[in-house]
Amino acid sequence: TERLSLIAGPCQMESRAHALETAQALKETADRLGIGLIYKTSFDKANRTSANAARGMGLEAALPVFAEIRESVGLPTLTDVHEAAQCAEVAQAVDVLQIPAFLCRQTDLLIAAARTGRTINVKKGQFLAPWDMKNVIAKITSAGNPNAMATERGVSFGYNTLISDMRSLPIMSQIGCPVVFDATHSVQQPGGQGTSSGGQREFVPVLARAAVAVGVAAVFMETHPDPDAAPSDGPNMVPLKDFEPLVRELLDYDALAKRRAAA
Amino acid sequence: TERLSLIAGPCQMESRAHALETAQALKETADRLGIGLIYKTSFDKANRTSANAARGMGLEAALPVFAEIRESVGLPTLTDVHEAAQCAEVAQAVDVLQIPAFLCRQTDLLIAAARTGRTINVKKGQFLAPWDMKNVIAKITSAGNPNAMATERGVSFGYNTLISDMRSLPIMSQIGCPVVFDATHSVQQPGGQGTSSGGQREFVPVLARAAVAVGVAAVFMETHPDPDAAPSDGPNMVPLKDFEPLVRELLDYDALAKRRAAA
Amino acid sequence: TERLSLIAGPCQMESRAHALETAQALKETADRLGIGLIYKTSFDKANRTSANAARGMGLEAALPVFAEIRESVGLPTLTDVHEAAQCAEVAQAVDVLQIPAFLCRQTDLLIAAARTGRTINVKKGQFLAPWDMKNVIAKITSAGNPNAMATERGVSFGYNTLISDMRSLPIMSQIGCPVVFDATHSVQQPGGQGTSSGGQREFVPVLARAAVAVGVAAVFMETHPDPDAAPSDGPNMVPLKDFEPLVRELLDYDALAKRRAAA
Amino acid sequence: TERLSLIAGPCQMESRAHALETAQALKETADRLGIGLIYKTSFDKANRTSANAARGMGLEAALPVFAEIRESVGLPTLTDVHEAAQCAEVAQAVDVLQIPAFLCRQTDLLIAAARTGRTINVKKGQFLAPWDMKNVIAKITSAGNPNAMATERGVSFGYNTLISDMRSLPIMSQIGCPVVFDATHSVQQPGGQGTSSGGQREFVPVLARAAVAVGVAAVFMETHPDPDAAPSDGPNMVPLKDFEPLVRELLDYDALAKRRAAA
Repeated sequence: TERLSLIAGPCQMESRAHALETAQALKETADRLGIGLIYKTSFDKANRTSANAARGMGLEAALPVFAEIRESVGLPTLTDVHEAAQCAEVAQAVDVLQIPAFLCRQTDLLIAAARTGRTINVKKGQFLAPWDMKNVIAKITSAGNPNAMATERGVSFGYNTLISDMRSLPIMSQIGCPVVFDATHSVQQPGGQGTSSGGQREFVPVLARAAVAVGVAAVFMETHPDPDAAPSDGPNMVPLKDFEPLVRELLDYDALAKRRAAA
Repeated sequence: TERLSLIAGPCQMESRAHALETAQALKETADRLGIGLIYKTSFDKANRTSANAARGMGLEAALPVFAEIRESVGLPTLTDVHEAAQCAEVAQAVDVLQIPAFLCRQTDLLIAAARTGRTINVKKGQFLAPWDMKNVIAKITSAGNPNAMATERGVSFGYNTLISDMRSLPIMSQIGCPVVFDATHSVQQPGGQGTSSGGQREFVPVLARAAVAVGVAAVFMETHPDPDAAPSDGPNMVPLKDFEPLVRELLDYDALAKRRAAA
Repeated sequence: TERLSLIAGPCQMESRAHALETAQALKETADRLGIGLIYKTSFDKANRTSANAARGMGLEAALPVFAEIRESVGLPTLTDVHEAAQCAEVAQAVDVLQIPAFLCRQTDLLIAAARTGRTINVKKGQFLAPWDMKNVIAKITSAGNPNAMATERGVSFGYNTLISDMRSLPIMSQIGCPVVFDATHSVQQPGGQGTSSGGQREFVPVLARAAVAVGVAAVFMETHPDPDAAPSDGPNMVPLKDFEPLVRELLDYDALAKRRAAA
Repeated sequence: TERLSLIAGPCQMESRAHALETAQALKETADRLGIGLIYKTSFDKANRTSANAARGMGLEAALPVFAEIRESVGLPTLTDVHEAAQCAEVAQAVDVLQIPAFLCRQTDLLIAAARTGRTINVKKGQFLAPWDMKNVIAKITSAGNPNAMATERGVSFGYNTLISDMRSLPIMSQIGCPVVFDATHSVQQPGGQGTSSGGQREFVPVLARAAVAVGVAAVFMETHPDPDAAPSDGPNMVPLKDFEPLVRELLDYDALAKRRAAA
């Protein structure tokens, strides 16, 4: 069993400079800790609570920046796709295509993403049972792509609240794909601020520790130099300065969990 | 306050003959009862539990049939759209564009649908609070289309189960758009049969009575001559022979509810 | 199938005068409407959110008032019991013993109540599935008492929220006992005001209409001359002046529902 | 911050011999691991799903055995109380009185337990938000007893299912009392076997690791030499032979969690 990896970066790509700066900082952290890290950021926030919210740089402007992060910073990248027609183009510049949770049942999108040959990370829908992810992953593998990952990001619990079921991690692991825990979206309060989603940043480390102790391949964690100034997901992103100490701590739990798995 | 309307038809368009036959039967029921009825059917089941499940006739084959139902049978039609690029073409043949529940937050799809000028019926996501539908409807109205409807179809309640909150009907009504109760998807058991969704057909009349007594503009109800032989949603569709008696009964409750609203 | 009955009264017995006054008003309403009505009030609020909240008059002071309501006002009465040792004494003065929702699995309490021979109304726990009430009712009937009733009062839905599943009404009806819908506790927000429970009085008529349209033997509804001044459950009680018009309306729905049941 | 303690033992006291044997085995484990361990067992299962289920030895027979475990085996003991009148008598023989989850809002029971001066462990109701436990704990402390503990044992999630919210551990910790995670009742499926509760024993270690990594004062874990032959809670108890290896592993996570807390 391999050591914990991280999928990390700011919720949305705000500018070339901002993206390169955060990617460089995360690359240095990854090197110091000796971990794998995939740089995550979105070129388009396609499903925001309100139509008035900022959407991001867009596909055309973002793809060269993804390519630059890969080549000049040296980090693999991940971004989310929203329509089948985007997949091939995004796959040219980005290493991992991510299927958003709301879209995890859209067959055409899953198959188009699978056919790019890139690794596909599917966020489990907030409305889905963990055992139902086997049908989702099968849509990818039956399209000839064995490299799928499944991400837990919380399940609907009443209104405007998510809850994280730690049982979902071993359940999804039995599907045979790497399992990721999304520690920042799991603390979202969907729609909880009227026209945007709220979040409980203080619980990110709590849920991340729990998930790593249970055992996961990777933790997904959005991070930002100044979350309170971020155009989206500010309430739940981890300040960049807190990222490395938190990951360092998670690696200790991971060592225990992987020791058990290896036994 | 207007009398109850119905949105009804088989889950998917199985063939031209099947569509025209069910549309003709529903037209006769609507005429006998003196109610408005919109014929609903899907040309593509884009988010089925499993990739192996039947998807439907597809857009190109279906659009002429929709046109034929409108012209020769005389019923307005409704179908669901899944990608922004489909909206304009579908709008040429279909009267009401429906946004599926999983996609109710996809801004581009909502706006593309809105811009066709057709009436847009948005299913409330299983992960959404009823008060959060105001942001969804605002995405449509701010695109210049005042004709949006909001449909309750159950909210996630634990795993593989939906529950219907009757409070959502007056809450969504306050947004200022017609509110629809989807009586057949509300009794779905998502993913509840392993590789397909289950359903509890016996509760369709139960929830429909409750919703109509509370007060709605329309009831959405999938119906089929032989649900157990249908390629999708068989477990929750109402047999066509039971449709008219059930609607007849609902109209009595509707009269009471609308009498109150008029008072 | 018999016509709808009501179980109604103020949440707690505040004084002899207050009890007799509200009982007299409800008796007059019942006579005007030609319905059965059971006067409900609590002598002790044994499970309030906070220990500092008002508890009520207590058993000794309340029992003579219950007897007086039965004899001089002419209404049967209902109250809740909390410990097995109370049942026999309460049964001397009160017609229906009610088991609170939190206590619906306490075997000794159910059996002690059953053995009084009085009708027993069990509130379904907020943590219980409707089909699990058959085990609860069996604890009563196997103690030799066939007169049990089952009351729906909402099920836990996330934190500080209840939701009413209208499917529970026919499910519990299949147990073979009368089913009651508690329209005022179903709109509680448990613990929702920090040190007391909140409520959404505006949804009482909404849920009551839904339940009566589905079909119930009785509606349970707390009512008070001045709910905002009541020592408990003020946020969800119905003002006494609104009680009769609401019941009048419910009776119309009930007639439709019972006509169907009789068919 | 002190090292992790355990609260452990068979769900119900089956006989003096069975109790002493399991207590002796657990005492030896505790000594080998150098941990505090409180022996838990019930003298009466007062709220079983069905009235036909085994209830246990009863108070009179059990109290001398509790005293014997304390004196001859040398373990402190814990048992649950169900009515206020039991508390004083139980407190003579038992070190920690436990309030069952269904009864966590019963004011009289909480106060009677508090007044014994014993430590009181309150299970959080399946219907309660973690922040609402502050009112529950205040009922104990305001009765003059500062020694209360709060136990997470899962929250209602749909029907017949519990889910464990790891955020509840730090939330309850802020109340200022030791927080316990009940790893065996959290995997219960209430009522899930028709006339008894089911359970998912395989998830006990999963949830226990998660909770200990987050940080708790103690883990509550029912254990039995032969769970499948146990009269209650068999499906979720941990086989006695697996208990020590699991606790050994949890202590490694605990060391990490407490190192952080100490930093």
